[in-house]
Parts: sequence; structure tokens; C-alpha cells
Amino acid sequence: MTVEGKNPVKELLNSSATIEKLYVIKAQDPQISYIIAKALERKIKVIYADKELMAKLSPTGKHQGALAVTTDFKYAELQDVLDAAKQKGKPHFILILDGIEDPHNLGAIIRVAECAGIDGIIIGKHRAAGVTDAAVKVSAGASAHVLIARVTNINDAIRKLKDEFINIVAADMDGEPIYDARLTGDVALVIGGEGAGVRELTKKLCDKSVSLPVFGKVNSLNASAACGIAAYEVIRQRRGVGA
Amino acid sequence: MTVEGKNPVKELLNSSATIEKLYVIKAQDPQISYIIAKALERKIKVIYADKELMAKLSPTGKHQGALAVTTDFKYAELQDVLDAAKQKGKPHFILILDGIEDPHNLGAIIRVAECAGIDGIIIGKHRAAGVTDAAVKVSAGASAHVLIARVTNINDAIRKLKDEFINIVAADMDGEPIYDARLTGDVALVIGGEGAGVRELTKKLCDKSVSLPVFGKVNSLNASAACGIAAYEVIRQRRGVGA
Repeated sequence: MTVEGKNPVKELLNSSATIEKLYVIKAQDPQISYIIAKALERKIKVIYADKELMAKLSPTGKHQGALAVTTDFKYAELQDVLDAAKQKGKPHFILILDGIEDPHNLGAIIRVAECAGIDGIIIGKHRAAGVTDAAVKVSAGASAHVLIARVTNINDAIRKLKDEFINIVAADMDGEPIYDARLTGDVALVIGGEGAGVRELTKKLCDKSVSLPVFGKVNSLNASAACGIAAYEVIRQRRGVGA
Repeated sequence: MTVEGKNPVKELLNSSATIEKLYVIKAQDPQISYIIAKALERKIKVIYADKELMAKLSPTGKHQGALAVTTDFKYAELQDVLDAAKQKGKPHFILILDGIEDPHNLGAIIRVAECAGIDGIIIGKHRAAGVTDAAVKVSAGASAHVLIARVTNINDAIRKLKDEFINIVAADMDGEPIYDARLTGDVALVIGGEGAGVRELTKKLCDKSVSLPVFGKVNSLNASAACGIAAYEVIRQRRGVGA
């Protein structure tokens, strides 16, 4: 997998990801200097490239003079996410994505989830975007710091979380207003796909549904915007209870 | 300006924008049928195109069989935004963007602002993205329903809003936690650019700064994510006071 752009490459260097190759265009730029220093520290060989080579290697052309080739994204197991949540000693906060198909949306969600301090993200294997180069790029490096489990069946994953007494909360237009819902315990937030939202069968498995108010004429929030707003409402509610 | 994609074209038809040309690929698709019916209702001539013509006209290739050419985006005046806010008879809620340079971010902000029922958006003329085709596309049609004023000087605009006793609140990492701030009165929320955030001089003009907590290692929310979360905190606080 190729990671490009100064910030994503910096974040990659600060993560535990295995970097196979690191290409840099020499420049008087503090971020490029940081990348080179960090690579030396981690004993990663820096390959100095010219613009032509870089353009050839870059999948999107937006390399900003830094590009790394890593081993493919390493998905976690569902159990890893649960273990990580337990180790934190705080109420669990897991994110379940039910059919996000746009890698840009996935990347944006990974970024906001990482900021929200989420324990991990669960995505489906089918009809869903994986952690592709595009998703990594949009996540601005956050994908290197978030556990992401890819499961065959989202509903089975939800059942497993329910067995652990985690409250499964779907974001859905017909749910109760999110500001009236209690979200302070162990929570897994389910965000639906761009078109259809959370699927009916999945919704039935959830303990409750919550909605965000919308006042405009367009009447639909982008999946990553909805995810960010809902995740931060969980954070807000938990501030009051010492979590 | 070109607007493409089924939803953006639908929204455009439901707005007061002047549509110069409307291209459609005939298909058995309820959204395409809706677009054709709406165009007939508005007496806009529908031009039936084939895939080749459409591909030629489409700036991004993602036309989904519907593409409209409109007169350029019509910016509002700052006074229009103020008048619109007054007419609503609710606490004012204005958004000020201080140097958002990425049209995708601008489009995402317009979309979330429209959902949040904001009175209007103020953007700068210089070193800031305008409402381009890309921004319109990402806004998913919301740009047709939001007043956007483009001003020469953001700080002058802020001074004018202060003269109207509107509380100017900057989103800034060093501000007080947003959940501790009172945001129930007339508010203008200032969101800074992707790199530098709200500029120092502008920050000094603001009545207060508020921050969103971040828990991750990447430690920065995307501008549109931060805007959505902050805007919805304003909405949440106002629910309690009958607004």
C-alpha cells in the first residue's frame, strides 16, 4: 500500500506500521526534515527521488514530496478491538460501519474516530470500502492508530458485542433524539451506508436508534459528519461521569 | 457553473437558481424521472444526451446521468445574511470561515451548515475557496439553499456582527472546552483554515474561543468535521431554551 503526503507519511512513521520503502524529494521544509530524521531513527532507508520518479510512484499525484510503501493494511480481529476496549478501563466505545462504500467517507470517519478516542472500528467485508490508499490518505494518518476489524457478517459481530453487554446504538433518522438518549455506558455506535443508512435487520438487532436533528431543505448529513457529531455527543455525555 | 449528479441536480431544480441548460441521459430511474418532471414544471428545456456527450460535459465524470449548467454561484451580501437571521425570529446562528482553502472542505461545511439550519455563511475573497463546481458537488445540493456572503475582509465582517451584538466564537484548540461555553444567544461561529486555524488577529476580535476535546495521536479534526460537531453543540444547547 502506498501512503503519500507529508502528514500521512509522518503519522505512518510514528505508528508501528512496517514501512518497506520511503521516497522523499529533498526540500528545505521542516516536515520533510522531520520525516528524514524520523526514518533515520527508525533505521528506514530514505530514497531520494526526483519529481519525475515521484509522479510515477504517486497514485493520486498529491505526494507533497513524501511517499511511503507499506505492507498492506493490517486489519485487527473483532476480539482485538474488545481486548483494547477492556484494557483502557473506561466505558467501551466501538464504531460499527454498516456499508460505508466511499473510501473518502471511510477515511474521514477513521480520522474523526481517532480524534474521538474510539476503541476500534468494525467494518464489513462485503459491499463496503476497505482501508485503501484513498482512505488512508483522507484519514490523514489516523488509520495507523486505529484498530479496524473487518468481519464477514456485521450482524454476527453485533451479537457478539451484545453478549459482552455493550449497548448497540444505531444512528437512524427515525430514532429518538440523540440528546435525549443515555450514551454513558459501554456503547457501540452503528453508522449506516451513504445511501440506505443502517439496514433493517441490523437496526432490529440494535438496542436503540438515535437521530440527529436536521433543519435544512437537503435533509441529510454526510455519513462522516453524522458519525463525528454522534461520537462527540457520546464524549460530551461521558464528561459528566468521569469517563 | 456545472452541477452534476442526480441529487445535486434535483436540489438545484428545487432551489431558485437559474438553470441555463439541463442534460439528462434517459433511464428508467425514479430520480431521473423526477428531474425531468420538475424541469417540465419549471419550463426548463431538457436536453437528452448520450453517454459520450455527457462524459464530455462532465467536469468530474460523476454525472450519474444528470447535469445542469447554471449561472455562476450568486453570493449574498453580509447584510442579506443578517436580514435572513432577523427574519427567522430565533437566535442568530452565522458561520464565518477564516481561510478554508479546499473546495471539498467548503462543500462539506456548506452541507453540514445547511442541515444545522444556519442563517448564512461568510467567507473571505482572498486565500479562500469559493463556491466552485467541486464545492457545489460535495455540498450535495445544499449550496442552493444557503446564503453565502463573500467579503473582502473577514475582520471587518466580524466587527459589523459585533455591532449587532452577536457573540463571535472562534473554534480554537486553546479555547475553553465547548461543552462549558454558553452558546444559546446570537452566535457567529468562526472556523479556521485547514492548516493554520483561526488567525491570531481574528481570534483577538472574537468574544471567546472554544475547543473540542481530542483524544487520539493524530490530534486534529478536519475543518468540516470540527464545524459539524461545534454547530451541533450550538443546536443541542438551544434545544433547552426553546429555540
